[in-house]
Amino acid sequence: MPAPAQRSINVGILGATGTVGQRFIELLATHPYFKIHALGASARSAGQPYAKVTKWKLASLIPEAVKNMTVEECKPDAPGFAECGVVFSGLDQDVAGDIEQAFRAAELAVYSNAKNYRRDPLCPLVVPLVNPSHFDIIPHQRASLGLQKGYIITNANCSTTGLVVPLAALEQAFGPLETVLVTTLQAISGSGYPGVSSMDILDNVVPHIGGEEEKIEWETNKILGGLSDDKTSFDLHAPKQINVSAHCTRVPVIDGHTACVSVKFAKSPAPSVAEIEAAFRDFRCEAQELGAPSAPAQAIVLHDAPDRPQPRLDRNLHNGACVSVGRVRECNVFDVKFVCLIDNVRLGAATSSVINAEIAVEKGWIQ
Amino acid sequence: MPAPAQRSINVGILGATGTVGQRFIELLATHPYFKIHALGASARSAGQPYAKVTKWKLASLIPEAVKNMTVEECKPDAPGFAECGVVFSGLDQDVAGDIEQAFRAAELAVYSNAKNYRRDPLCPLVVPLVNPSHFDIIPHQRASLGLQKGYIITNANCSTTGLVVPLAALEQAFGPLETVLVTTLQAISGSGYPGVSSMDILDNVVPHIGGEEEKIEWETNKILGGLSDDKTSFDLHAPKQINVSAHCTRVPVIDGHTACVSVKFAKSPAPSVAEIEAAFRDFRCEAQELGAPSAPAQAIVLHDAPDRPQPRLDRNLHNGACVSVGRVRECNVFDVKFVCLIDNVRLGAATSSVINAEIAVEKGWIQ
Amino acid sequence: MPAPAQRSINVGILGATGTVGQRFIELLATHPYFKIHALGASARSAGQPYAKVTKWKLASLIPEAVKNMTVEECKPDAPGFAECGVVFSGLDQDVAGDIEQAFRAAELAVYSNAKNYRRDPLCPLVVPLVNPSHFDIIPHQRASLGLQKGYIITNANCSTTGLVVPLAALEQAFGPLETVLVTTLQAISGSGYPGVSSMDILDNVVPHIGGEEEKIEWETNKILGGLSDDKTSFDLHAPKQINVSAHCTRVPVIDGHTACVSVKFAKSPAPSVAEIEAAFRDFRCEAQELGAPSAPAQAIVLHDAPDRPQPRLDRNLHNGACVSVGRVRECNVFDVKFVCLIDNVRLGAATSSVINAEIAVEKGWIQ
Amino acid sequence: MPAPAQRSINVGILGATGTVGQRFIELLATHPYFKIHALGASARSAGQPYAKVTKWKLASLIPEAVKNMTVEECKPDAPGFAECGVVFSGLDQDVAGDIEQAFRAAELAVYSNAKNYRRDPLCPLVVPLVNPSHFDIIPHQRASLGLQKGYIITNANCSTTGLVVPLAALEQAFGPLETVLVTTLQAISGSGYPGVSSMDILDNVVPHIGGEEEKIEWETNKILGGLSDDKTSFDLHAPKQINVSAHCTRVPVIDGHTACVSVKFAKSPAPSVAEIEAAFRDFRCEAQELGAPSAPAQAIVLHDAPDRPQPRLDRNLHNGACVSVGRVRECNVFDVKFVCLIDNVRLGAATSSVINAEIAVEKGWIQ
Repeated sequence: MPAPAQRSINVGILGATGTVGQRFIELLATHPYFKIHALGASARSAGQPYAKVTKWKLASLIPEAVKNMTVEECKPDAPGFAECGVVFSGLDQDVAGDIEQAFRAAELAVYSNAKNYRRDPLCPLVVPLVNPSHFDIIPHQRASLGLQKGYIITNANCSTTGLVVPLAALEQAFGPLETVLVTTLQAISGSGYPGVSSMDILDNVVPHIGGEEEKIEWETNKILGGLSDDKTSFDLHAPKQINVSAHCTRVPVIDGHTACVSVKFAKSPAPSVAEIEAAFRDFRCEAQELGAPSAPAQAIVLHDAPDRPQPRLDRNLHNGACVSVGRVRECNVFDVKFVCLIDNVRLGAATSSVINAEIAVEKGWIQ
Repeated sequence: MPAPAQRSINVGILGATGTVGQRFIELLATHPYFKIHALGASARSAGQPYAKVTKWKLASLIPEAVKNMTVEECKPDAPGFAECGVVFSGLDQDVAGDIEQAFRAAELAVYSNAKNYRRDPLCPLVVPLVNPSHFDIIPHQRASLGLQKGYIITNANCSTTGLVVPLAALEQAFGPLETVLVTTLQAISGSGYPGVSSMDILDNVVPHIGGEEEKIEWETNKILGGLSDDKTSFDLHAPKQINVSAHCTRVPVIDGHTACVSVKFAKSPAPSVAEIEAAFRDFRCEAQELGAPSAPAQAIVLHDAPDRPQPRLDRNLHNGACVSVGRVRECNVFDVKFVCLIDNVRLGAATSSVINAEIAVEKGWIQ
Repeated sequence: MPAPAQRSINVGILGATGTVGQRFIELLATHPYFKIHALGASARSAGQPYAKVTKWKLASLIPEAVKNMTVEECKPDAPGFAECGVVFSGLDQDVAGDIEQAFRAAELAVYSNAKNYRRDPLCPLVVPLVNPSHFDIIPHQRASLGLQKGYIITNANCSTTGLVVPLAALEQAFGPLETVLVTTLQAISGSGYPGVSSMDILDNVVPHIGGEEEKIEWETNKILGGLSDDKTSFDLHAPKQINVSAHCTRVPVIDGHTACVSVKFAKSPAPSVAEIEAAFRDFRCEAQELGAPSAPAQAIVLHDAPDRPQPRLDRNLHNGACVSVGRVRECNVFDVKFVCLIDNVRLGAATSSVINAEIAVEKGWIQ
Repeated sequence: MPAPAQRSINVGILGATGTVGQRFIELLATHPYFKIHALGASARSAGQPYAKVTKWKLASLIPEAVKNMTVEECKPDAPGFAECGVVFSGLDQDVAGDIEQAFRAAELAVYSNAKNYRRDPLCPLVVPLVNPSHFDIIPHQRASLGLQKGYIITNANCSTTGLVVPLAALEQAFGPLETVLVTTLQAISGSGYPGVSSMDILDNVVPHIGGEEEKIEWETNKILGGLSDDKTSFDLHAPKQINVSAHCTRVPVIDGHTACVSVKFAKSPAPSVAEIEAAFRDFRCEAQELGAPSAPAQAIVLHDAPDRPQPRLDRNLHNGACVSVGRVRECNVFDVKFVCLIDNVRLGAATSSVINAEIAVEKGWIQ
């Protein structure tokens, strides 16, 4: 792999006309070495210029470079995809399973934002600021499927991602956590477009998001756990899983999931509030060490103001690639409680996949 | 006391031009036996017609009966108040302390929505659907202050009120609770008018409400506890306080505080989800038994739909005098978790005071 | 027809599970003489209890009386509809045309909220506070179609309705208008459910509502015009149509369409602002004279405060059956400008149909 | 004046802690040649670090360079201001009059966002994309006041600014306009902080903004008019003023004022819709020709989509320095109607002042 400035890696985007696909385009249009080379969407859109078949919903213009690119079907042998070694998938879960598998089978590296393979025992579930070590299962994934180069890497659910970054900082500094109770206040963009009806959310809270609580409760242990010594399985936070309970709600916020978190450490006495704040402030992650261009300068921004983080004011920090944390204080019931915030459409979605791929480049999983 | 249909009791309203005062007027304008006889506000407004000095902010017209009533100063010897035995106080905390005390000292019964006397060891903190038994401390309050008729009854913080009603149902059915962890999503109206700046809350969440978490954590034990045997003190949930931890947030909702609650019972094994749902459904309270006209037909409305209660759709049930509960389910960390909702400007504020006063009429504390 | 207290008229609701259908149910469940006797929906829902197939979206509980009523297909010979002489239609435009025609052909009186027959030269387009005289074309409608009893009455587009009520007051007092320029700020509920995506409207304005401007520009002249002398055609405001130009926008408001209106009178000099305010204040309409139970006590509420009407505060006046007007002032360009507000889901939809039917009862068109 | 890359001009900011002041800081912190050298606020804040006394409300961090700058009083002889030749004023109107005059009297160039001097017969009211020619009155302003270097330049009201840019394009292409009728839907940020109470605007429209309609109706003619031949007075669009009528409303949008505009040209026949679209598309302005670094690449962005511009999606185009226009179509009443959008906190406020100052640098009014 040449030095970053010399690199140029063709990538394709699956589900390019959708909400997550648009974010991939926005991020990759100015990427230092990933070059958008193929745009995949449904057969209905294939063959037409991107701008014509896309209802662009971002607060920026469609990048000139993709405006007139011809959309292709999401097939590995479509001309554009045939020239890519890497694809980013913003596909909906109802089609992601088959299509991503087809691309992997065709020996492509698939960086997926869909939920389909998150619980797969062969597929890493990588939050780029937390567990890039899980890439090490790729050889086993390939071997199990008889592949040379293809693999699938998934990123986590958006609200899980926002939670595990500060939890990772705590475990890194103070050892295992025992209990996590979290209530999320999630943005409407988490549900895609058209997603949440305005009739359901204006002047309202919907205290339920289908399947979301289970995702947080399950994914957390896969992400914060390690690999078996032989790099063939995930240990799911062995020897003792973190006991996670989640309440998920939808609120009238466009972007940015807020979470109120209470945690209990395994060790006693627990660290002090000041020690915990220092751990958040000092947290460094491998993505930064590796020099991934989209990794945030700070993985965790610790806020001093007593009423921060707030989604509207803080979701944009570090281009939406960090997690904001604030209000660290003692909890009457557990050891400590705090508030955290993630930009669900960036670090909670497309940005995670892009940083994951950047890490993979540095580690040699993309060549 | 005559039968309800024959009753007519003059009441005054302190802080009548403010947000809570407007709610008192709305409720009392059509009350079967309380008659609005005096309206108190600042010296600046005194002497003028109510409609002229009030920026009326409710989605209803100012009741005709009060439109032209002359506003008085909040002094017990003002002509209107001199003819009242009962006042409802919607005063702000910065003036409520002195004024309410003056009215009590002048031998009036004061039903206060302010926080000033909530922690007072002589003053009941009464959520009308939960602990009217605390009225029994009135003789001791009077005796301690050398009064014959005057006393102060406070109602609870709005978010505390929404929480303790379902907790009371659980304790009534299954014995003491040990632990409560609650995250609130509170409406802007909780902060009065002008209150929360639109710049702070549109497309946003503010994860902090000054003093609110402490109120919930403290008031819960006073309300759910009992009185000493000699009716001279509050036992604060003796022998063992409930361990309460609260996260409070402000969300872009006009009226209706939502809470996500996880609880642990003292007894083990804990009741099942079905038993808990039955306890919510069957909960009956003394305010209903006494026939308080403003008491809700159901104190707790249990919702079956998986995405309810929602503030916009459910805050209006039973004229905002009930608490809605839904999503009762097992909690990985504690025994059970659920969502509850209160109309913060009605049961969470003025309606509580009115039902408290109705209970007092039935029990003979207002004559 | 017996006296109102003795009346009982079976009515059916077409499209009963939809947004407008739910409003019909809410209004009719407590109606003094219309009795809900049949609920029509798609074949998919037919045969099942109403509560089971309906995602009820109103801030009130489903009326007990309809909860368990069996939904039928929208066919005039369905058992329930066969016992009705009147139906209210909340059908979507894509099915309303055929179904309403079938009911009319089966000799039912159809009160429709759909747009399909609004421009039909045989069908009255009746805003109940404005032009009940248009009912007089019913004999010609029946005769043209060879019917004895059946007919279709439509009500107007919601934003047109809010506009023509104050315009009618002006024409009644000061003679014909020449020019009307109106900009609407329309609520999301005007688009039904799920309707407007929250991603499109939170923190946003959408300056376009498909077909809406044309409806306002066209319907106004049909409604404010009269009938030919022989009651066989609409004169569309002969001899001279009002020149109407509309800009329609969608804003993040749940219910209540606001309109900013500038008008020019045919006569010169134009009336003064004070005269116009008096005309609004004194406006009386035939629906009130006839004693229609759902007609508002005031057809137009004129607001004095300089910042009213506002949708959240004023849409609920007179149960949403009136139009609010405010800020009457001189216009640099035309004669006068003002703001008006209508509850689009009540007077702008179901309430209009119900008052129309009440008028029809009084006039003998429903027996 | 050296070439741009060599320039470095010290500037001060008056009202630096307020809403507009924060925008000035955000814009100037990265400016190619204006250097923030002094920050002025009230006596209460003076002497303290900027970050300590400022409730920063932008969705970006406080620029490092100003965080620890010491705030000074708004006096021309304060040490920081004494070293500036130029100040930008984000002062509130209640103090702007005296303070700006003091700075001018001290021979500074004052670029003001306040309304105080907009109608002053000596002060230019400059929308940088429209009428930089009005700078030519500066010698007369100085002469009248006996000054050598000091002067005041104001920018226009935010909603006026959004309107006059497309109007200027029309007049430039097709000659004078005769009539303009405009309805604005204005963002809450236009009212500063705390500004609009959330209780007033959530789920609501407020159809009144004090003084706003008069500003639009008056300022338009000053801006679109020229100077007298001797450069000593404004001709207010002589020989014939445009007849402007405005309706102003506040809507729940954070940033971005939308306007629905109908216009009539003096010449007849009026240009076609296609000609008008071309005029918008082709509009070039002097700020661009002069190379002002903050001038937008396009002064007017013409949108093709039928539902654009929208504030949330389009306010950010060209860093908020352009005006978006869309929905150009024939008007039944006048010649043509369209929708326009301005970022009220950028081109509608601080950005205008900054571009004005950049123009002044190029024209030699700042040295």
